[in-house]
Amino acid sequence: MKALVYHGPGKRAWEEKPRPEIREESDAIARISKTTICGTDLHIMKGDVPTVSDGRILGHEGTGIIEEAGTGVRNFKAGDKVLLSCITADGTCEYCKRGMYSHCANGGWVLGNTIDGTQAEYVRIPFADTSLYHVPPGVDEDALVMLSDILPTGFECGVLNGRVQPADTIAVIGAGPVGLAALLTAHFYSPAGIIMIDTDDNRLSVSKKLGATATVNGGDGRAAERVMELTSGRGVDVAIEAVGIPATFELCQSVVAAGGHIATVGVFGRSVELHLERLWSHNITITTRLVDTVTTPMLLKMVTTGRLRTKELITHHFKLEDIMSAYSTFENAAREGALKVILSS
Amino acid sequence: MKALVYHGPGKRAWEEKPRPEIREESDAIARISKTTICGTDLHIMKGDVPTVSDGRILGHEGTGIIEEAGTGVRNFKAGDKVLLSCITADGTCEYCKRGMYSHCANGGWVLGNTIDGTQAEYVRIPFADTSLYHVPPGVDEDALVMLSDILPTGFECGVLNGRVQPADTIAVIGAGPVGLAALLTAHFYSPAGIIMIDTDDNRLSVSKKLGATATVNGGDGRAAERVMELTSGRGVDVAIEAVGIPATFELCQSVVAAGGHIATVGVFGRSVELHLERLWSHNITITTRLVDTVTTPMLLKMVTTGRLRTKELITHHFKLEDIMSAYSTFENAAREGALKVILSS
Amino acid sequence: MKALVYHGPGKRAWEEKPRPEIREESDAIARISKTTICGTDLHIMKGDVPTVSDGRILGHEGTGIIEEAGTGVRNFKAGDKVLLSCITADGTCEYCKRGMYSHCANGGWVLGNTIDGTQAEYVRIPFADTSLYHVPPGVDEDALVMLSDILPTGFECGVLNGRVQPADTIAVIGAGPVGLAALLTAHFYSPAGIIMIDTDDNRLSVSKKLGATATVNGGDGRAAERVMELTSGRGVDVAIEAVGIPATFELCQSVVAAGGHIATVGVFGRSVELHLERLWSHNITITTRLVDTVTTPMLLKMVTTGRLRTKELITHHFKLEDIMSAYSTFENAAREGALKVILSS
Amino acid sequence: MKALVYHGPGKRAWEEKPRPEIREESDAIARISKTTICGTDLHIMKGDVPTVSDGRILGHEGTGIIEEAGTGVRNFKAGDKVLLSCITADGTCEYCKRGMYSHCANGGWVLGNTIDGTQAEYVRIPFADTSLYHVPPGVDEDALVMLSDILPTGFECGVLNGRVQPADTIAVIGAGPVGLAALLTAHFYSPAGIIMIDTDDNRLSVSKKLGATATVNGGDGRAAERVMELTSGRGVDVAIEAVGIPATFELCQSVVAAGGHIATVGVFGRSVELHLERLWSHNITITTRLVDTVTTPMLLKMVTTGRLRTKELITHHFKLEDIMSAYSTFENAAREGALKVILSS
Repeated sequence: MKALVYHGPGKRAWEEKPRPEIREESDAIARISKTTICGTDLHIMKGDVPTVSDGRILGHEGTGIIEEAGTGVRNFKAGDKVLLSCITADGTCEYCKRGMYSHCANGGWVLGNTIDGTQAEYVRIPFADTSLYHVPPGVDEDALVMLSDILPTGFECGVLNGRVQPADTIAVIGAGPVGLAALLTAHFYSPAGIIMIDTDDNRLSVSKKLGATATVNGGDGRAAERVMELTSGRGVDVAIEAVGIPATFELCQSVVAAGGHIATVGVFGRSVELHLERLWSHNITITTRLVDTVTTPMLLKMVTTGRLRTKELITHHFKLEDIMSAYSTFENAAREGALKVILSS
Repeated sequence: MKALVYHGPGKRAWEEKPRPEIREESDAIARISKTTICGTDLHIMKGDVPTVSDGRILGHEGTGIIEEAGTGVRNFKAGDKVLLSCITADGTCEYCKRGMYSHCANGGWVLGNTIDGTQAEYVRIPFADTSLYHVPPGVDEDALVMLSDILPTGFECGVLNGRVQPADTIAVIGAGPVGLAALLTAHFYSPAGIIMIDTDDNRLSVSKKLGATATVNGGDGRAAERVMELTSGRGVDVAIEAVGIPATFELCQSVVAAGGHIATVGVFGRSVELHLERLWSHNITITTRLVDTVTTPMLLKMVTTGRLRTKELITHHFKLEDIMSAYSTFENAAREGALKVILSS
Repeated sequence: MKALVYHGPGKRAWEEKPRPEIREESDAIARISKTTICGTDLHIMKGDVPTVSDGRILGHEGTGIIEEAGTGVRNFKAGDKVLLSCITADGTCEYCKRGMYSHCANGGWVLGNTIDGTQAEYVRIPFADTSLYHVPPGVDEDALVMLSDILPTGFECGVLNGRVQPADTIAVIGAGPVGLAALLTAHFYSPAGIIMIDTDDNRLSVSKKLGATATVNGGDGRAAERVMELTSGRGVDVAIEAVGIPATFELCQSVVAAGGHIATVGVFGRSVELHLERLWSHNITITTRLVDTVTTPMLLKMVTTGRLRTKELITHHFKLEDIMSAYSTFENAAREGALKVILSS
Repeated sequence: MKALVYHGPGKRAWEEKPRPEIREESDAIARISKTTICGTDLHIMKGDVPTVSDGRILGHEGTGIIEEAGTGVRNFKAGDKVLLSCITADGTCEYCKRGMYSHCANGGWVLGNTIDGTQAEYVRIPFADTSLYHVPPGVDEDALVMLSDILPTGFECGVLNGRVQPADTIAVIGAGPVGLAALLTAHFYSPAGIIMIDTDDNRLSVSKKLGATATVNGGDGRAAERVMELTSGRGVDVAIEAVGIPATFELCQSVVAAGGHIATVGVFGRSVELHLERLWSHNITITTRLVDTVTTPMLLKMVTTGRLRTKELITHHFKLEDIMSAYSTFENAAREGALKVILSS
């Protein structure tokens, strides 16, 4: 089969690879219907993720059709349409029992990382019963691809960890796909104000369409000032960090109100300064989280019943075989106005 | 009356001051029965707390007897024995309604800070109805003094914010009065392991008496290593920081398990390094809090019913008029083996 | 002044009464701007509420303008526009500190019950600081009248106690004002399905306008059957009871799914049968609550920012002096198509 | 092999049955080391549990040694010592993902009910990976048998559902094995008062040894009165019902304070009267639950670290082959002073 293969920093190829086979009874093989490219894949391409070795098929998102299910798989059979999760969960380890699938003793984020991923014609899914979801009839599959990673990430790491409450004022720093996913799912809890902050006006414009009550272009370095003005000097109840750099974490600390939450969603490459000399007495909560995808069934229901509209998140469509072009587009997201690209087999 | 007065960094005196009077209808005047000295008072003496001005009477802990109650005070009358709270709460502002008395629009930590405090023969207590507690008959008043600040601080900022659960393994970094208060109140939730970390063997020995399951003297810089050994490499569910310096916050980050909590209790004088490059994916929660004293009624019940034994926290007794000596003892806590000193009128 | 006075079962009069005066320093006197009639007032008129004695001025909802504030009132002064709460809270008792204003040792539901109420030209409000709210500029006062009782009641007793979650399917039994308030505020948590049940098609029609996803006219005694069909035999996650009779509580028990919640909002006049012989193993939670109005600040923010539209709840307007006619209309709610009536001074 | 077999109401025999075999890859076969008899087994013997058919091997508690594990079992292998859970969980259904194992689509309470149970020399355990627990070295196996059912039942249905908090006053109605399990595990949250109510003085005496702060023999029908005296007329924060009859549920309603919880643990054979005419305004929460055994890992840790002492719960020891005598003893629990009997192979 064909697959997008990582060959060290900066090097990738759409090339022939052996079709995956069942290794454990709990495995399933899926033929990929749709997949996408994640910001994390770009990090991998830069060589930032040392667990990814030369020869690895990338990708941890998508939908597919079960080609073959191991004898231990109870919930899925050949022909079933499935949603793939970026997180693999054995369902029986201590962490899985606590709902922390991200730290599964035998899973976690492995797809397109320590085992071959979804940017291919076929993929092997370990622990299929606890790592796949049935696709309900009649649902737009493009929307479902958003459920593999970005929607649960924005929701769990941003909205749930940030404890967004009705009437809250929240700020989301970073209006990329995951920041927008936080915006979309924050609506579930009816905050009174959602301030989106980015340096890309196009993304801020999408934010407006998705229900942001205010947008701030932080390119001039005065975002904190603007947020304080917008909140009458009070600051925000929840600051969701969806970039992953020291400057945006600093911004969160500047705008969070006493009693508030800072929920980090971004993938950080280096440490940050935490201003405990000021915040020690501000009753602040700061959270980190690798998405557990425990809310996928709920989010799936929201998509199915039309309560979660993901259309604006998808800006480009490609054939799976044109994934090399799709990577180029995604790597130039600002210029191309790209958010999520859909690759269809 | 006589009072302990701050006269700028390093200068204090036990001197004559005018007796306080009712200013607002919601005020009460209390004659001090017992008071104590807090680590924060030493910070003030070093000049670290700029809100404290020359001439200020220090102290925010103690018990007393109501001398006079304003016409708007409903719950207290002259002659009532009262427990004073380090936090003053108007009970009606937005923050008080949320239970965040620490951020009361008209109160918060004001005693011995922005208004005169309790290290005196008399003190004026604003918002008496929501800032005082009746002393139940037959309770040891020394124990109650521990309820003005250190017990709610250790409990709210450490144990509650850290979400200590039955069977958890927790570490408390810093075995001073507040760290020991965290240890004592952590027992309410039956953790399976409590590791106390300090550099003072005397304090670690007290920790053992108060139910620590293990102690670590971190003087050799290998505390993290020891904690990981004690937890079979797993780390702790909750790390309570009760010192307030970068090194101990660093230690918390080194020993907290995935899914765990870091609860800061210490007063930090400068910023710290937060290792989001590692912790971003560890599902960690970090909290800060100025004590709200919302749990004081509960803690009072625990002391009254004998479930909270504070005896070991009190190492020295002085007469109130000997407070200058008491300060000297407390400033040399390690040498003197001092934890809390009680000053009785 | 003129007031609507209860004179025993079935007897009421719009008659002259002495204007109220400040009795305690914490009192305020308000001139009524708008008030309304509650289903509870009709219960009183039937003689069902023995705490209401002959001569009592009824009413526990409304807005007004402060005429005079006691010397102990800090947050309000003459001329301030205020929202009145149906619950009076001293803010300092054990229950108030726990946020259970409904059980305030010196308050609770007293207005129009044990002290004179709001269906009058003037009213005395005890504990003004903790029982009144400032009216934000520019807000429609009719909408605010809904905040005195029905919105917090539907929200706290129904939605919060029922723990409505995103993607839940909920049923509200009873589409009167409080049931509709539950419907309106349930949206804050984005349930996937809201089934409204009543026997009045007009009210079901209003329910549709307010966002019900399905309506069931239970007049044929087959409501449970219909709900089970609508939920594919699964039942609902939350059943909110907003009538207060055994039959509707029975219906809740028939339709609640395992793991679900039954939140009672209705005022019950007699006991009900609880089917523990079946429900003991269904992991059900049943709640009761007299509204605490602790969420009034939040709801006020939702009304102010336009997120809570109450227009459809108000069906009739009268002058305050025509309150006798308003009662007649409200007593024949079904025939008159009445939900809430607004009385303006 | 030999097994205790149900042959219709009142009839049981210790007789030869075929040794169980692996049917599904996720099954394991265990040789029973220790088992016990549950109050539920007596209900079955009376014919009260219609799902149990003639020929069924009873029992849903115990420890054992893995004889054979299906090819799909990952966590257990032949020779492993295991703790059996009364609840079987597939770990992958909607309910299991929510932690509601009791309602597992393919499991729940099946052992000794719809499939053969543990009162036998061997037992087949479906979904072994999610239904068994490893026995830690050095732990007393008698204590572990208490973890199969009664400890998680008392803890989850009574203590957790009742939300026992530090300083609470609680009442446990029924001092049988499950009521005592609630008492033992209530200590995890440090209530200030635990009132045990029963009609058997022996059981009340055991209650005292296990930390009850007061006991009430309700034989004279005045238990409610006594509880109100013991709580100065205030009532209890949590009432745990561990009998399962209308009279004891009535008692709970009489003694629960406003804002309190009634947690039902008992198995009810018929409906009860719920006094909503009084409780509608008392802010009460009533819960039901079939144990989910989600807390078994935590409880196991508490037993292993010596924080949960179960010795007093075990009153009799028999050889497994003498189970017919053990049943006789257990059926005359009051006369025999029996709580739990241990049957050892």
